[in-house]
Amino acid sequence: MTSAAIPQVVIKRLPRYMRFLSELKEQGVDRISSQELSDRMHVTASQIRQDLNHFGGFGQQGYGYNVPNLITEIGKILGLDKPHNLIVIGAGNLGRALAGYSSFEDRGLYIRALFDAVPENTVSDVRGLPVFGMDVLPDYLKQHGIDIAVLTIPKENVRKVASQLYELGIRGFWNFAHIDLALPEDAVVENVHLSESLMQLTYYMKH
Amino acid sequence: MTSAAIPQVVIKRLPRYMRFLSELKEQGVDRISSQELSDRMHVTASQIRQDLNHFGGFGQQGYGYNVPNLITEIGKILGLDKPHNLIVIGAGNLGRALAGYSSFEDRGLYIRALFDAVPENTVSDVRGLPVFGMDVLPDYLKQHGIDIAVLTIPKENVRKVASQLYELGIRGFWNFAHIDLALPEDAVVENVHLSESLMQLTYYMKH
Repeated sequence: MTSAAIPQVVIKRLPRYMRFLSELKEQGVDRISSQELSDRMHVTASQIRQDLNHFGGFGQQGYGYNVPNLITEIGKILGLDKPHNLIVIGAGNLGRALAGYSSFEDRGLYIRALFDAVPENTVSDVRGLPVFGMDVLPDYLKQHGIDIAVLTIPKENVRKVASQLYELGIRGFWNFAHIDLALPEDAVVENVHLSESLMQLTYYMKH
Repeated sequence: MTSAAIPQVVIKRLPRYMRFLSELKEQGVDRISSQELSDRMHVTASQIRQDLNHFGGFGQQGYGYNVPNLITEIGKILGLDKPHNLIVIGAGNLGRALAGYSSFEDRGLYIRALFDAVPENTVSDVRGLPVFGMDVLPDYLKQHGIDIAVLTIPKENVRKVASQLYELGIRGFWNFAHIDLALPEDAVVENVHLSESLMQLTYYMKH
């Protein structure tokens, strides 16, 4: 079955499988039954079987799932079978926090540099990553194979900067600004609107 | 119709309505047709009518929606009709980034203090908010009506700290640690697993 046939709700769950399987791998676990995985993930074994059957059913009766294989196969589906190079636009607290996550590299997601309107104000305290001014952006992107921009700048500036990045060839946008981007159709935008997540919390606290 | 009958998928969309309606209010717009709101939000007018009909249909034929009323009503549903007081656990880059969002206060969500294992290492650069040591937590919570804890500490420590916060009376948890919390059923946990969002991006870039 091709990945095109995988329902979106299953796609949303794949990173969570990745997380649990990676933890198992770190612990030296090579295979696991759907029941054991179910107990750990607090979802039914039946859902796990259904989800994982979408990409060929790597489980074998009486054996369970081969953990490293499953990580590789889910990684392929998630586009993690080749490395991605990222830059962070905005070197404030949020930009530095994201640039500081070394665990992204375990997935082949490499943050290469930060850019800021006022780079001289920024303490370069993040894993030795360089912090450049925005004027350097065109030259930098010509010289480096960057495919994802992480946007942590104020919403007033983000549309203009996103358009500039698009013109310079960037197609992947991880957007933390609290605004929807308007980019051509071949751009892929994943929004993280943090206040919306916080309002989900207050909703469930009330109800 | 009571809010208990609102489908979860609609609830997920409510914060986005809040965002667009609040922008309209800031611009001095008092009423809007579902068609105009549809053009701005890039969803169909029919979906807007269906969504907003879940809480009493505030739209009137030929008049449209009253923007401030709609904000108030959606706010009630989202639990924003009373203020919430938050503390941030972990005063690193991410904790300071979240504490720095003054816009949460526009929704009645007040971050009151940060806590850190090593508070003396922390520059108190965030809107004048105090940074306390973890040892102060029990006394602080006795004296302040805090209902939400924002967890930005490493995953190794987060379960222990979350249990401690629960024992001290906190029931709302906004968790940024890359691990699922195991808390009693009356705790409400909203997880923000950032790497999962990034993997959604790489998925859609591939497909």
